[in-house]
Amino acid sequence: MTTVTRALAVPSASAHFEPVTIERRALRDHDIRIDIAYAGICHSDIHQVREEWGPAVFPMVPGHEIAGVVSEVGSAVTRHKVGDRVGVGCMVDSCGQCEQCLAGHENFCQVKTVWTYNDTYPDGEITQGGYSQQIVVAEDFAVKIPDSMELDVAAPLLCAGVTVYNPLKRWGAGPGKKVAVVGMGGLGHMAVKIAAAMGSEVTVLSQTTSKEADGRAFGAVDYRATADGSVYSELRGTFDLVINTVSADVPLDRFLRMLRPFGAVVNVGLPTNPQQVRIGSLTSGDKVLTGSNIGGIPITQEMLDFCGEHGIAATVETISADEVDKAYDRVVNSDVRYRFVIDVSTIPAT
Amino acid sequence: MTTVTRALAVPSASAHFEPVTIERRALRDHDIRIDIAYAGICHSDIHQVREEWGPAVFPMVPGHEIAGVVSEVGSAVTRHKVGDRVGVGCMVDSCGQCEQCLAGHENFCQVKTVWTYNDTYPDGEITQGGYSQQIVVAEDFAVKIPDSMELDVAAPLLCAGVTVYNPLKRWGAGPGKKVAVVGMGGLGHMAVKIAAAMGSEVTVLSQTTSKEADGRAFGAVDYRATADGSVYSELRGTFDLVINTVSADVPLDRFLRMLRPFGAVVNVGLPTNPQQVRIGSLTSGDKVLTGSNIGGIPITQEMLDFCGEHGIAATVETISADEVDKAYDRVVNSDVRYRFVIDVSTIPAT
Repeated sequence: MTTVTRALAVPSASAHFEPVTIERRALRDHDIRIDIAYAGICHSDIHQVREEWGPAVFPMVPGHEIAGVVSEVGSAVTRHKVGDRVGVGCMVDSCGQCEQCLAGHENFCQVKTVWTYNDTYPDGEITQGGYSQQIVVAEDFAVKIPDSMELDVAAPLLCAGVTVYNPLKRWGAGPGKKVAVVGMGGLGHMAVKIAAAMGSEVTVLSQTTSKEADGRAFGAVDYRATADGSVYSELRGTFDLVINTVSADVPLDRFLRMLRPFGAVVNVGLPTNPQQVRIGSLTSGDKVLTGSNIGGIPITQEMLDFCGEHGIAATVETISADEVDKAYDRVVNSDVRYRFVIDVSTIPAT
Repeated sequence: MTTVTRALAVPSASAHFEPVTIERRALRDHDIRIDIAYAGICHSDIHQVREEWGPAVFPMVPGHEIAGVVSEVGSAVTRHKVGDRVGVGCMVDSCGQCEQCLAGHENFCQVKTVWTYNDTYPDGEITQGGYSQQIVVAEDFAVKIPDSMELDVAAPLLCAGVTVYNPLKRWGAGPGKKVAVVGMGGLGHMAVKIAAAMGSEVTVLSQTTSKEADGRAFGAVDYRATADGSVYSELRGTFDLVINTVSADVPLDRFLRMLRPFGAVVNVGLPTNPQQVRIGSLTSGDKVLTGSNIGGIPITQEMLDFCGEHGIAATVETISADEVDKAYDRVVNSDVRYRFVIDVSTIPAT
């Protein structure tokens, strides 16, 4: 039997959100149904709703930062049971057989990663995301939320959390390491908290120092304004790792100069334009320029467990269904501390 | 007592070489004197002689691919003895105390790496390189050449060998890994030999297939011409590692597209212009763009031992002192298979 559930959808590119009723598929053997409590608003929701990343599927129910409780399980489900607190992130399916899937990198499935919304399953089913009251997904694409963590502050971890945890781990953040976090938005504030919890010495590089008190409360030991540019020379050769969460044009050579030998600049934002870099900025100190695109299911679970153990989660503003349009404008204006989550119980009937 | 020795010098930028007599310092306690047998011609010699990398020190005796035999040792020398076959690469001194030196990365000394020529020691002594019959260096900056290796084919390993061995090792070349080597010159031919000896499956990407037979003899299993550009789409998602040895403008996005997830493009050349890259080429598959600048003393020794064990060394054209000017022009025209080495016994008296 299918599930009929309330959701928020945009009927066409850049339209306003409106309450709708959508149908979730009948549970297959390995599916679970989740009663969603909160859905985070990620900047990539906005890019897709506004077709800034190319043609999209409408009507669209965005949302890939999903936290809720399991309300039904398929006949063969072993990972979750009714009542479990779970999350769903950016993906809802992959082939499960290729080298990348077998290594836990479902985000780079060599056949097809099925994204949580604005995508289609191989059988043609259109995906609809977490701005809704229920979702049905394969059990392997739901992760457990630690008991110690509230669902509202957990939701943003499913994208923003893993997006920064993954490169911090890959590139060796930890005791004795100096990490710069560029940007103090949804991704940046999580990078500060996680890098600090890993034991790194964290510096925030933000356009202004308006969020300095928050940054230090999240664990940063230094906070610098980048507006006048002098910070780049002052911090030359300082960091083991620079995590750039900003999607504007990137001063790559300046970032690379702030690294110590063998250090890495990791981009988790996605600027539209090609960027310039001098190869000498890389060879001089064997430095790394890289990017990171979310993370697979195993590391998503690891990140949640890590955040649970260290008592960290997202800092959020909880909004109701009728505030989403306004929230989008505020996200675009960087006016959110630090992630909006939608209380999906407020989605009205149609 | 100082050592007076024959050398080849350029008196001013871009001038022709002429025989000169130079003086090497009297041995300090930890110095050794080496009777040089061969010196390789590295493209960076040409850049410096022609002041393409900025103002240089003249008269200049280039050469940082030096192979010879120890002829005298200072009173406190323990690493080498008279008669030992040794090599000297790009460096002749560093502080020895900083974090980078202590970790064996003297090439990134935080105080000052002293380059083998066109540089000055902290005490003001000007360095002069290997196009000469004798050199005096600190024992720690000479490495042992395996007994199985002739000195002529060993010389180019001191720069070209370690320049490619270091990133091949750092980025995981080995069994089961697919490595592309871009360019089949002095660096490229060594990258093919070393990557193949490490057990990687090596593909050469060269402008034309004119050197294909050599490439396969060096250990490549595939050899592709890049001139028409179609190879980049044909090889999309193929390689774990791309070693780019070419110093011309680099099609970074094309190289990154040829990588598998988590793969790396390593530049060991140094193009003059800034290069363009899309951040999406990095995030899509968590790919790495990096550079590598020679290597420290420990990995230089490791590389020589590795080459000795695997019976590989440079493929060279040996020339006499009066052929160096012509050889420079041939290097610039990529007309050398694959490294010129100067038989320094042919340097005439002044």
